[in-house]
Amino acid sequence: MDETMKTMMDGVRERKPLIHCITNYVTVNDVANALLASGASPVMSDDEGEVEEITAISAGLDVNIGTLNSRTVISMLKAGKKAAAMGHPVLLDPVGAGASRMRTDAAMKLLREVRFTAVRGNVSEIKTLSAGSGTTRGVDADAADAVKQDDLASAAGSVKGLAARLGLIVAVTGAVDLVSDGERCFAVFNGRPEMSGITGTGCQLSALMTAFLAANPERKLEAAAASLCAMGLAGEIAWGRMQPGDGNSTYRNRIIDAISNMTGETLGAGARYREM
Amino acid sequence: MDETMKTMMDGVRERKPLIHCITNYVTVNDVANALLASGASPVMSDDEGEVEEITAISAGLDVNIGTLNSRTVISMLKAGKKAAAMGHPVLLDPVGAGASRMRTDAAMKLLREVRFTAVRGNVSEIKTLSAGSGTTRGVDADAADAVKQDDLASAAGSVKGLAARLGLIVAVTGAVDLVSDGERCFAVFNGRPEMSGITGTGCQLSALMTAFLAANPERKLEAAAASLCAMGLAGEIAWGRMQPGDGNSTYRNRIIDAISNMTGETLGAGARYREM
Amino acid sequence: MDETMKTMMDGVRERKPLIHCITNYVTVNDVANALLASGASPVMSDDEGEVEEITAISAGLDVNIGTLNSRTVISMLKAGKKAAAMGHPVLLDPVGAGASRMRTDAAMKLLREVRFTAVRGNVSEIKTLSAGSGTTRGVDADAADAVKQDDLASAAGSVKGLAARLGLIVAVTGAVDLVSDGERCFAVFNGRPEMSGITGTGCQLSALMTAFLAANPERKLEAAAASLCAMGLAGEIAWGRMQPGDGNSTYRNRIIDAISNMTGETLGAGARYREM
Repeated sequence: MDETMKTMMDGVRERKPLIHCITNYVTVNDVANALLASGASPVMSDDEGEVEEITAISAGLDVNIGTLNSRTVISMLKAGKKAAAMGHPVLLDPVGAGASRMRTDAAMKLLREVRFTAVRGNVSEIKTLSAGSGTTRGVDADAADAVKQDDLASAAGSVKGLAARLGLIVAVTGAVDLVSDGERCFAVFNGRPEMSGITGTGCQLSALMTAFLAANPERKLEAAAASLCAMGLAGEIAWGRMQPGDGNSTYRNRIIDAISNMTGETLGAGARYREM
Repeated sequence: MDETMKTMMDGVRERKPLIHCITNYVTVNDVANALLASGASPVMSDDEGEVEEITAISAGLDVNIGTLNSRTVISMLKAGKKAAAMGHPVLLDPVGAGASRMRTDAAMKLLREVRFTAVRGNVSEIKTLSAGSGTTRGVDADAADAVKQDDLASAAGSVKGLAARLGLIVAVTGAVDLVSDGERCFAVFNGRPEMSGITGTGCQLSALMTAFLAANPERKLEAAAASLCAMGLAGEIAWGRMQPGDGNSTYRNRIIDAISNMTGETLGAGARYREM
Repeated sequence: MDETMKTMMDGVRERKPLIHCITNYVTVNDVANALLASGASPVMSDDEGEVEEITAISAGLDVNIGTLNSRTVISMLKAGKKAAAMGHPVLLDPVGAGASRMRTDAAMKLLREVRFTAVRGNVSEIKTLSAGSGTTRGVDADAADAVKQDDLASAAGSVKGLAARLGLIVAVTGAVDLVSDGERCFAVFNGRPEMSGITGTGCQLSALMTAFLAANPERKLEAAAASLCAMGLAGEIAWGRMQPGDGNSTYRNRIIDAISNMTGETLGAGARYREM
């Protein structure tokens, strides 16, 4: 039983943070249900005219550029500044950064103008942010970019360096997830490769990470690591419940189900991670 | 067997009303599938340039401000006026009214300018409309606002008074639902507390209520009450089918499944309500 | 075992085409999961500022006007022209064409200005495109419009004529599906009537057809026919797995599940079609 992981999960269930999401319309329903499954509450709002008020009554802000448009990027900047000024955790999910100049520019502008608490993406996206440019194959990670366990130490060094340079928590997800606040770095081994056969597990994770950060503000790196373990563990539990004939749509449902049944004890017992 | 409830449900299945929804992008897919499950048909359209034509070929209009923006509020006003002028039932779901000035103002403006048939919300939202202002915790009902069975008579009085003042049907949903046309008031006892652990049951209910009103125009209050019973009963039936390891995502699917299997007889046998 | 159908399906699984979708927000999540289920990858992007870049890194473009608005129609034109210029397959799903002047005009403008590879709709929608006007009952096919097996030969003649006139592949879906490139015409008999009780099977099919076209560019008509067989067969397989108490929401999940389990062999064995 990992007491730290248990405490992080219990925190979400006890504090029930309201999470303001400015997120894409592809996976928004799953994001809302995943937050509810964790014990948090969602509020989706993306109009310039209300995002500051909405974020002010929330406990954290999740900014996801998956279906970015010129209207919502303004809302993201406004909400991000307000949430940061209020001391709320603010997370950036730079979906598809590198796939178009507009996405890369928007992600870079957000990073420059908003004091984010954390950024969560796949290797391509994070590399894009690191370089200020890059190439991304749609919104999925380049196979070539997947973190291999072999070079985990070197990847951890890169992530730690980037986190230190940006002054925030950086989480890079892939076969192994890495998360660092610039001083320490955790590698998370939970998860299933089949999760990439569903749309939205990354988006759900970003929302959950925001909720974990909001509920556990004194231990941010552990909170971020716990959300990575929780999402991956949910993928493992859900996979164990698959029946013959089930496919990616049922897997999607079972992952959210697994989150909704996850207690602090479940996470404490199932989390697989280590400090690098 | 409650013949009234049976008749209302049969009406939807026989008349298959086409319901125009201007609704939020979080739960829109569930709203469409819930309408189809009931025997009605959905058409989603929110552009100013076509909403009047679309609502003209529809049998009812469901206006939901869950992800309001400055573009769609204009469409809501145009469609609402057109639908009301054609004698179609028009329903307002003031999601999150009270959570931001923009939402409260939009809801109040809609109420002033459109002759709604019904409004359906949680206690916080309805109180906001009643007062012209208020506070809402995101889009979920304040726990403190839940209608307790103890003070049901007094709550029924308030709902009846508001319905009379606004000149439309008011439905307030919570642990017990109340619905009034200003003269009579029904309390509906169907439902499960676990339904609030899923996003979108309120949005689905609003769409269903619009369909029930469209299919049963001569008995509007009974139609509205029947939709409340139907949604609550679906939540009960679905809960009865939950297996170990199932969670909120599966529950979401099973609720819509239960609607799709619900006959007039099922509703007539399972509806639990009484006139106050 | 139909080797052609097997080859088409294997092509999608092997080439894993990235499909750019500018599609409606009602069914977009199902579209993304259906593409992933088939072995393809989705990228959703609808902002004028990035659609050309996004479509340039994709292998095919799916344009769906289900929740058209004045902002996205510009993006559809830009992306469509770019994709066609690059030789990518471009498909139009004219959802609800005929239901409003705006939709009809948008569909006609798209057809005039973009060199589409294929158009896929129900009989009402395709008749609207053929006539330049028409009537549509919401986004569902008029019952009166359903292709009856009796007059299949005459319907096939019409579809072939339209395909020849427009210079692209025309697919008309209903009780029997017809698809023609103007020279040959296939009738597809796979499918279940219950599929119309779920929102989004048409949208999923359009995205899949785009993926099949992208993966099998040398045999476009067979590719389009294979996607019709695959979607219909998935509906049949999914129906066979329904349990008492299941309804349209579970059916939705099981259809996508069936796609995700479908191999070239499954499709080769289950495809039911013939050249007319």
